[in-house]
Amino acid sequence: MTLKLHNFFRSSTSTRLRAALNLKGVDFDYIPYVLRTGETRTPEYLAKNPQGLVPTLEREDGTFMTQSLAIIEWLEETHPEPALLPKDADGRARVRALSYMIACEIHPLNNLRVLFRLRDQFDADEEAQKDWFTHWVTTTFDAFEAALTHSADTGTYCHGDTPTLADVCLYAQVWNNKRFGIPLDPWPTIARIYAALDQLPAFAKAAPPQQPDAA
Amino acid sequence: MTLKLHNFFRSSTSTRLRAALNLKGVDFDYIPYVLRTGETRTPEYLAKNPQGLVPTLEREDGTFMTQSLAIIEWLEETHPEPALLPKDADGRARVRALSYMIACEIHPLNNLRVLFRLRDQFDADEEAQKDWFTHWVTTTFDAFEAALTHSADTGTYCHGDTPTLADVCLYAQVWNNKRFGIPLDPWPTIARIYAALDQLPAFAKAAPPQQPDAA
Repeated sequence: MTLKLHNFFRSSTSTRLRAALNLKGVDFDYIPYVLRTGETRTPEYLAKNPQGLVPTLEREDGTFMTQSLAIIEWLEETHPEPALLPKDADGRARVRALSYMIACEIHPLNNLRVLFRLRDQFDADEEAQKDWFTHWVTTTFDAFEAALTHSADTGTYCHGDTPTLADVCLYAQVWNNKRFGIPLDPWPTIARIYAALDQLPAFAKAAPPQQPDAA
Repeated sequence: MTLKLHNFFRSSTSTRLRAALNLKGVDFDYIPYVLRTGETRTPEYLAKNPQGLVPTLEREDGTFMTQSLAIIEWLEETHPEPALLPKDADGRARVRALSYMIACEIHPLNNLRVLFRLRDQFDADEEAQKDWFTHWVTTTFDAFEAALTHSADTGTYCHGDTPTLADVCLYAQVWNNKRFGIPLDPWPTIARIYAALDQLPAFAKAAPPQQPDAA
């Protein structure tokens, strides 16, 4: 199966999906888009993904899949090994909750189109955008750190000693934070896990600077 | 099993979880919190949910679950019938993608703490907040409507003729839209599905005005 990944090197949701594909050992062709110039707003691209967002996964049969977490859950169901979710329902709920803390509480508030909207609606300059971005990272990373330190399930990674969906989301978010130079010092457990993830080729290969369209 | 649902009548994520619990036929005790007065920011509540958000599901064994979608996936795994996700991997991916369009692209941008932040950081008044809120609803509902109309999988509800996770998210979002009086006219398929959902007791019972803490 050769999949086509329509994506952008710096997109956090694209980084998630690249890491998950790498972890599953699934090959893909890399199709880059420049978000700032509207390459995902063309009629041709909107036919693939009506939201005009990245990533979109194109399958051999010509169908398209959207929303990074929906695609990763599909990968988990169709390529079960190595597992990105624990086997037990409680563990799965914990991993998904950690994942959604990032996917539903940080990333949606901080992506490029939101920063553009802040600029357009509220004249938010780079400094105001950084305050906004940092506020949402801090709010949720404080709680994420607490969730990690208060649970015996936390291991080398967010849940045990093999990487899960939560690590995929965390790794991509830490990369996203670098856009505004947010250091990890306030969150030692997150920092430790990020460093461990960065040692894994599946993650390191998914990092923005390693992509063909990296500036 | 008697579960305790820590929640707030108008919270969209609480509405999602109430609808899912109702659909699964799982009883719960309703524990209301007033968000505006900080009742979810107390040390006692933060010990239940380090994010200080609703909903939190408290189980009989005294453990707590957070993040509405993680809890609903757990419900699906532990109470499989009636199913809120299709049996086939492609269908599951479609339902999850529709769900995340709302859960990751609309709701996170429009909840109360975000509106408060807009007010505090950018002096956004009620009118500016409404513009912001409406912008994100419109952006994603346009794409959601397209995703529904372009797929043969759309039925009485978002996916086929039984309600799924996507309907749970959609129903809660339409209720949330009422806060700013956003009419559904631009999205006839969404309007049709919402009306159908509102006929189902599991959904109607989960609606904000039906809750004990409704103003």
